[in-house]
Amino acid sequence: MTHTGIDELKSYYPGQRYSSGEMERRYEAIRKKLAALDYDCLLVYGQGYNDHANVRYLSDYEQMGFSYVIVPRSGPLTLFYGFTWCHDPTARIMSVIPDVRYIRDRAGEVLADELRKRGLAASRIAVPACTGPAYTIALPPADHFDALRKALPKATFVSEPFFLDEIRMIKSREEIARTERAAAIGDQAMRAVIGAMAEGVTDADLYRAAQRKTMDMGGQWKFAIVGSTPMSKPNLITPYQLPLKRRISRGDIFITEIGTAYGACESLITRPISLGPPTKQYLELFDIARESFNIMYEAMRPGKTERDLWEARTPILKRGLKFQILAHGMSPMEPYLTAEEDLIRPYTLQEGMVISLEPKPYIGEHYTGDGIGMFLSDTVVIEKNGPRDLNKLPMEFFQV
Amino acid sequence: MTHTGIDELKSYYPGQRYSSGEMERRYEAIRKKLAALDYDCLLVYGQGYNDHANVRYLSDYEQMGFSYVIVPRSGPLTLFYGFTWCHDPTARIMSVIPDVRYIRDRAGEVLADELRKRGLAASRIAVPACTGPAYTIALPPADHFDALRKALPKATFVSEPFFLDEIRMIKSREEIARTERAAAIGDQAMRAVIGAMAEGVTDADLYRAAQRKTMDMGGQWKFAIVGSTPMSKPNLITPYQLPLKRRISRGDIFITEIGTAYGACESLITRPISLGPPTKQYLELFDIARESFNIMYEAMRPGKTERDLWEARTPILKRGLKFQILAHGMSPMEPYLTAEEDLIRPYTLQEGMVISLEPKPYIGEHYTGDGIGMFLSDTVVIEKNGPRDLNKLPMEFFQV
Repeated sequence: MTHTGIDELKSYYPGQRYSSGEMERRYEAIRKKLAALDYDCLLVYGQGYNDHANVRYLSDYEQMGFSYVIVPRSGPLTLFYGFTWCHDPTARIMSVIPDVRYIRDRAGEVLADELRKRGLAASRIAVPACTGPAYTIALPPADHFDALRKALPKATFVSEPFFLDEIRMIKSREEIARTERAAAIGDQAMRAVIGAMAEGVTDADLYRAAQRKTMDMGGQWKFAIVGSTPMSKPNLITPYQLPLKRRISRGDIFITEIGTAYGACESLITRPISLGPPTKQYLELFDIARESFNIMYEAMRPGKTERDLWEARTPILKRGLKFQILAHGMSPMEPYLTAEEDLIRPYTLQEGMVISLEPKPYIGEHYTGDGIGMFLSDTVVIEKNGPRDLNKLPMEFFQV
Repeated sequence: MTHTGIDELKSYYPGQRYSSGEMERRYEAIRKKLAALDYDCLLVYGQGYNDHANVRYLSDYEQMGFSYVIVPRSGPLTLFYGFTWCHDPTARIMSVIPDVRYIRDRAGEVLADELRKRGLAASRIAVPACTGPAYTIALPPADHFDALRKALPKATFVSEPFFLDEIRMIKSREEIARTERAAAIGDQAMRAVIGAMAEGVTDADLYRAAQRKTMDMGGQWKFAIVGSTPMSKPNLITPYQLPLKRRISRGDIFITEIGTAYGACESLITRPISLGPPTKQYLELFDIARESFNIMYEAMRPGKTERDLWEARTPILKRGLKFQILAHGMSPMEPYLTAEEDLIRPYTLQEGMVISLEPKPYIGEHYTGDGIGMFLSDTVVIEKNGPRDLNKLPMEFFQV
């Protein structure tokens, strides 16, 4: 079967392809790790929003529905997509893995057949988690996985939640260049929000300003969390995952984190913006958050550890405040520094790690929504000689 | 714990709430069906894009990450979300189910505990599929489900892929009103595309025109599939799931399906647009597609069956053409009329069903991407006395 149409169409793909060298780098890192841990194969499942990142990392395929990638310790990769055969050309245009197959149903059996053909029926197979923002080890759906285990009773499937995260967290030069572009788009999206901040506009209007600017600049919109509250009677700890229709009044603060992407590389930026002068309390919170930010920024060096970033909680606790998150990796979320301390895993910081430094001190009871929160962030990369802030917008408390 | 902040914030929710009567109607339909099929409980999982629709249908919660809803045959519902506790207020603002809980990890055990507390440890529990566009029966992730089954060895979990689809496909008056609004937004988005069609613009520019209009009108952007090709040397069968950077030239055709939503109700519209006069071949394909559309439109009456819609393939086959899909339901996809005929399930059409009538005749080999495709669609509701087209844009071959 020739794909002359597809070959031409691939050339129109939005221009954010990685070099074949970059893709080979990724596959090599996986193969090396499979060998080191004595696995014969990696079986990667993807579905939906964040959980899809692993599949895209390996194939450049942006799914609807679900998909799988088989990465054997030796031999070619295969991408299976489950979306409907009508979209087969789409999958072939996007995928850099040449072997693209449609799974209509019986996904477990189809995967088992392919593993059997490759001589992997009695092999050791690592299954990375579809790690989303929540820390749940999420294997493939039970019906797929039950059938797969039944069809290959001699194979050993091992849940390896961080297998790909640990590889993905070290970014290549190409990935950092794209992240830099995502951050530049984020800067402009934030400027658009500051420009739109005015009496009577709603949180949803400000959300849309960021979204529109991101798309106009050719970026990919990931999400924004947004929220406004009167500074004199605040009830905003973390911005909301959806834009509300609350109208801004003089004396209000608006806090937004904007997530943008370019070429599958993400950046985050957060700034507080007030309509009218900030209150003393909010200014103090901002200063504390910035102090925490600076501690982490200084620690963004090869050889430091997650515990050096963790020091950023000190200024917050010293003032009797609480915090939610201090920092997390950029797709994947590792290293993840959260108040849920038992979720923190040890890491030595390395050149190429990109981290959202985002201290979130607050006063109040988070679960009630009543409280006062501050939140600022930039996307920072570790280079050989130290940190580089990919966002260029000043780290200010913006006043309109 | 009081949620004074949350109560106020709920009032700012984007204004697309259903009445409590509507939500009660949904719960009642589920309880009645649970009783009829002798189940004690429905356990609903949601993750990602389309698969999330079931959870939103029950709770109005728009997840990131994953979520679950427990719907017992009697007693209150519980929503579990897995996104991170920072977004607890967000979940509480969105959810119309008052009992909202965060699952950090060990989801299977947490669900088992709640089922046990409700006296359901040895009960019969129906698990609907997370039906996406692909027809895979997708249960919760294997790690969640393995743990759940282990923790409740006396419970019986039964996969019931169409349990919720069959309820969701019959729309209430409130849902139809929202679908009508979604269709009006879709009409304007399509007009925006027609307005932007010009020499030198790219598929991506046209995509953005639709996206922007949808958001400006307060609609929710679901997706568009888009594609252009020279009519004299075509290689477009189905539009692509991503916008390419191909530039439009005179003599090109652009085909787009635009998916918009309002208040969690979706609509689809598809039109072909040519730059310059269409070729005879494309005009003929359009006429065949419209003939198929009309057969289905006439069949959109209570008491008819999916086989009456299926007659729409006749004009296509009579000309020696192939087809992909003729029609499908609007969230859920049922009834689904596809060339993969063994996937078609029997249904008697009923008042309140909303169906995208979308015949897609084509010439060529789909898997190569080489071929000629036509594709038009409107969103049509079955009323007591017959069909009503919710789209008002004329069913024309638009020429610019």
